[in-house]
Amino acid sequence: MTVRLGVIGTGAIGQDHIRRCSFALAGSQVVAVNDINADAARKVVEGLGIQAEVYASGHELINADNVDAVLVTSWGPSHEEFVLAAIAAGKPVFCEKPLAVTAEGCRKIVEAEMAHGKRLVQVGFMRPYDPGYRALKKVIDENGIGAPLMIHAAHRNPSVGESYNTDMAITDTLIHELNVFTWLLDDHFVSAQVLYPRKTTNALPHLKDPQIVLLETAKGTRIDVEIFVNCQYGYDIQCEVVGETGIAKLPEPASVQMRSAAKLSNTILTDWKQRFIDAYDVELQDFIHAVRDGQIGGPSAWDGYTAAVSGDACVLAQTSGKVEPIELPEKPAFYA
Amino acid sequence: MTVRLGVIGTGAIGQDHIRRCSFALAGSQVVAVNDINADAARKVVEGLGIQAEVYASGHELINADNVDAVLVTSWGPSHEEFVLAAIAAGKPVFCEKPLAVTAEGCRKIVEAEMAHGKRLVQVGFMRPYDPGYRALKKVIDENGIGAPLMIHAAHRNPSVGESYNTDMAITDTLIHELNVFTWLLDDHFVSAQVLYPRKTTNALPHLKDPQIVLLETAKGTRIDVEIFVNCQYGYDIQCEVVGETGIAKLPEPASVQMRSAAKLSNTILTDWKQRFIDAYDVELQDFIHAVRDGQIGGPSAWDGYTAAVSGDACVLAQTSGKVEPIELPEKPAFYA
Amino acid sequence: MTVRLGVIGTGAIGQDHIRRCSFALAGSQVVAVNDINADAARKVVEGLGIQAEVYASGHELINADNVDAVLVTSWGPSHEEFVLAAIAAGKPVFCEKPLAVTAEGCRKIVEAEMAHGKRLVQVGFMRPYDPGYRALKKVIDENGIGAPLMIHAAHRNPSVGESYNTDMAITDTLIHELNVFTWLLDDHFVSAQVLYPRKTTNALPHLKDPQIVLLETAKGTRIDVEIFVNCQYGYDIQCEVVGETGIAKLPEPASVQMRSAAKLSNTILTDWKQRFIDAYDVELQDFIHAVRDGQIGGPSAWDGYTAAVSGDACVLAQTSGKVEPIELPEKPAFYA
Amino acid sequence: MTVRLGVIGTGAIGQDHIRRCSFALAGSQVVAVNDINADAARKVVEGLGIQAEVYASGHELINADNVDAVLVTSWGPSHEEFVLAAIAAGKPVFCEKPLAVTAEGCRKIVEAEMAHGKRLVQVGFMRPYDPGYRALKKVIDENGIGAPLMIHAAHRNPSVGESYNTDMAITDTLIHELNVFTWLLDDHFVSAQVLYPRKTTNALPHLKDPQIVLLETAKGTRIDVEIFVNCQYGYDIQCEVVGETGIAKLPEPASVQMRSAAKLSNTILTDWKQRFIDAYDVELQDFIHAVRDGQIGGPSAWDGYTAAVSGDACVLAQTSGKVEPIELPEKPAFYA
Repeated sequence: MTVRLGVIGTGAIGQDHIRRCSFALAGSQVVAVNDINADAARKVVEGLGIQAEVYASGHELINADNVDAVLVTSWGPSHEEFVLAAIAAGKPVFCEKPLAVTAEGCRKIVEAEMAHGKRLVQVGFMRPYDPGYRALKKVIDENGIGAPLMIHAAHRNPSVGESYNTDMAITDTLIHELNVFTWLLDDHFVSAQVLYPRKTTNALPHLKDPQIVLLETAKGTRIDVEIFVNCQYGYDIQCEVVGETGIAKLPEPASVQMRSAAKLSNTILTDWKQRFIDAYDVELQDFIHAVRDGQIGGPSAWDGYTAAVSGDACVLAQTSGKVEPIELPEKPAFYA
Repeated sequence: MTVRLGVIGTGAIGQDHIRRCSFALAGSQVVAVNDINADAARKVVEGLGIQAEVYASGHELINADNVDAVLVTSWGPSHEEFVLAAIAAGKPVFCEKPLAVTAEGCRKIVEAEMAHGKRLVQVGFMRPYDPGYRALKKVIDENGIGAPLMIHAAHRNPSVGESYNTDMAITDTLIHELNVFTWLLDDHFVSAQVLYPRKTTNALPHLKDPQIVLLETAKGTRIDVEIFVNCQYGYDIQCEVVGETGIAKLPEPASVQMRSAAKLSNTILTDWKQRFIDAYDVELQDFIHAVRDGQIGGPSAWDGYTAAVSGDACVLAQTSGKVEPIELPEKPAFYA
Repeated sequence: MTVRLGVIGTGAIGQDHIRRCSFALAGSQVVAVNDINADAARKVVEGLGIQAEVYASGHELINADNVDAVLVTSWGPSHEEFVLAAIAAGKPVFCEKPLAVTAEGCRKIVEAEMAHGKRLVQVGFMRPYDPGYRALKKVIDENGIGAPLMIHAAHRNPSVGESYNTDMAITDTLIHELNVFTWLLDDHFVSAQVLYPRKTTNALPHLKDPQIVLLETAKGTRIDVEIFVNCQYGYDIQCEVVGETGIAKLPEPASVQMRSAAKLSNTILTDWKQRFIDAYDVELQDFIHAVRDGQIGGPSAWDGYTAAVSGDACVLAQTSGKVEPIELPEKPAFYA
Repeated sequence: MTVRLGVIGTGAIGQDHIRRCSFALAGSQVVAVNDINADAARKVVEGLGIQAEVYASGHELINADNVDAVLVTSWGPSHEEFVLAAIAAGKPVFCEKPLAVTAEGCRKIVEAEMAHGKRLVQVGFMRPYDPGYRALKKVIDENGIGAPLMIHAAHRNPSVGESYNTDMAITDTLIHELNVFTWLLDDHFVSAQVLYPRKTTNALPHLKDPQIVLLETAKGTRIDVEIFVNCQYGYDIQCEVVGETGIAKLPEPASVQMRSAAKLSNTILTDWKQRFIDAYDVELQDFIHAVRDGQIGGPSAWDGYTAAVSGDACVLAQTSGKVEPIELPEKPAFYA
């Protein structure tokens, strides 16, 4: 069976996913696309040479008979509406982050999905599909380091544009860590604190950079995440989990080891798109297989919701300077 | 367009490829299978739940109207016959190594393909599809280390079965290096010599293990390859290219770095199947896209032929103890 | 000229230093020893076969005509008294940490030394003599990473005895980091905070382990130090300095890289004495040369004092749970 | 007891050793020096401010009453004469490599020493004093990798001067490997072969560079050594011992790990003097302690002799292109 997909939003990430689902993955076909700019959507369809109908409205696309499942890759503020519509139509939906721009919006989706009675939503957090993080989780789950007590992590970009501001360090950057840590640890956050080290001279005046976010989980694991988005040297994701008997560290991306010019060196990536590019393939293939099998898995609406609540507390902590509590309802059995 | 494949030989590697082409890769469908044991073939089809006709003869399968391209994964001695038949039928054919069990057989395939006038054959050498080797070749091709002068390499298995004998160190093991080095260096071999170090006590009496193969290329690059198939500790492929200005080393497979029990360690694979598992996907996907585009690439019949000739010289050197010349006709423009 | 040393305290560290100054270093001779247990002192002298007089009193030893300089390796609470006596006698004195058990005691020594008008005191902080830390400082000082913004550090022991309690994580363990960071950064601390992650089950009931200490310096550099003294896997000192343009990491101790039993591994030390063993030699040799040249350098009484003040704030932060300020007088020109 | 040393030859290495024995090591004093250029010798003594008599003749120095032991650091062709004179005087002698410029000369020294009845000679092969090689030997001796079957090694210099010619690759460069491998393996060589890879364009016309030397030991261990003295990138000594159950690799010199400019890198040394600088200290300290204790150890005259014989075979192999046998008399019990 081939899964017939409708894609809402044909910007950069939308085009990537259309290409992926048309030419790189097994078992899917993009049959419908929509974009706020219909011309742009048409050009994407023509450019890729695929057989897909261009819909004037996302809602029409969602409800089209030949659309088995929906990818939402449109502007963030429109996510909530389209995901709710897909749930209403009873169709599986893969939604790029954020699931909704507010925690309240995420909560509504959670409630709608639970009311529907079966999982339909996968959120586009790709790190749980990265082979490195999966290997790290395997070590933890197989008790290779004992109970996790601490995580030391870093999320570094070589530089950011002018539009990147201080709270985007949370909402755009840390958000991936918020997701991947809860998954790695099978745990959730109870508090957040933000520290501001001496500012780099390479950041624009309006941006506090670097930042250190301190998180505490329900089980007591303490996490420190350095966010440094003008680090100059590369795109570098570090994650080290300290357990009772040992430490496991996220693999560095494999690269050729060089001996040259008095240096023994490996390349560090500079483009974030390269870092998790394989994970996107695995993530979407997982969604497609899940649609085929009628059993949606992967990052859930609940994960989207808890990331939103946790992120809100971090943003609050950025300005309060205090340890901010993170309060979450108990995880519904539905999402166990 | 979906490429419809016929698969000859449903043993272990045949089944892997059927699964791959049915459920993991884009744009292909297995529509026909054949095996010397028809029952076995039927069971594979049923077990995987695919829609494929079971043919009593490989030749019938090759000539079936709905078969666009053929995968030959049968017993080695049958390869030559089926590849020649596919060429006769004008159909693209992917043939697992060896292309033929003799250099003479390979030469016949080369001639048949050239007579056909267009490439049809891809040989199942998967290392050029491994991301590590590709990264290594990129460094060389971009002049990252200057002209290559030497390669230091090793091919190690934890252990081998009783049926593995001394010349299989060449025909089963070194054969991959013979292919990948010509590709890496864009060069071919002119001589071979074999040294026998002190034998490991972990090898059976009939097997010389380890062995060191010394190769010289037309451009003068010197290569030493340690073959050690009872090394106990793991499946380990090493390749270090020494150039005029620097050295590039094949990446170790990425793995979690552990601090545990007084060791800072990374896992070494023990199962050879894990080492190049991703390369098989890329290799077959490449073949499928090539069939679709009518332009076969990847390791060619010529590569299969030169590997066979070079391997023969290495086997001779195993017993002669001398430096054996490797004589190859000039590479036809057809394969340039 | 041979520097004639008197050693007060012939316990483990005292004996190490006597052996060092007698048989491993250039230009020194131990001519006098004292211990609260005179018999023990005599046995040490006899056991090593050195020509040294055993003094009944540390003060007599300090004032002996043939003693050029003094090593204080006695019980911590006695350090202040002997260091002050050496200053009074105008003799150079090397004092193992702590310089004094209270910040007030350290301050008195600073004042006495300044009153004397010339440096006489070197405190036994050995990390600035470790080749790894020196290489790290060289990178920072040569602007290899730009201005330092953050340090991520860890101090881990495999296990500790029953007598080790929660505040010793500061006074015995962190004290080395407090010294080495001020030296690395040429900076001092302005605040401290302590976090308690989930406790390891391998620590005794009375001990909080691990702990995370957060420090802020006058220049705004933020430091997180994990202290984990029951980490099981080894004695492991980590220090990573994040600068504006790059990151420099303390070298791992050199060790043989092994491929064995499916692991690519290096040994991690388990005995803390091995980690800085070379640094002790360099440190003492530096003191001996300094005595010979009449110019005492290395970690100063001021460094001992500021470490004590900073340590007190950390201990306070352990119980208050708050960010505790660290207030230091301006550094006297005398110690610049 | 202080060992009183006489040093013959006050060139670069002579001065280094004088400085070392005067100011860095324990238990020695340089009391006598000699050089073919007496003015130069005088300047060295004055420059260092040491109390040493300048002798007009090496033989007078050797026989001076207050000279306990002799360091021979003069021009290579004079070594044999001075070492024989020291043996005749019954005085311990440390001789920089080569022990003599011919194997025959070395043999004479061996015979003279055996006739004397007790070891007096230590040859200045410093690698057995390098902590890395010692750690490697420890792994082998403790059966950490099973019986050694192969060694893969490399000796690389960034560049060499005009006077460096093809056979110096053996006599100046490989000579260190010839020594250290016999020590590592407790074995000796039985044959040598030399291969010439494609020549680097960075070598002068008269020099063959790189070269590969293949050695076989009495126990059957096979060794390949790449000698590449214009490798451009650094001074790099590699040694990997492959045993029956695992592989042990000489540690890379410890250095700061950097993340900078899209590279994760460690510095590679470019100056050979830095690589084994600590080993020189340990080597000389060992000699001084040995003189004091009346029991000379370390690399022996026999080691100097076998290195010379093995080197001669390698030089022969350079021009013959053949496998050259290395024939050595049985090792006398005297040197066991």
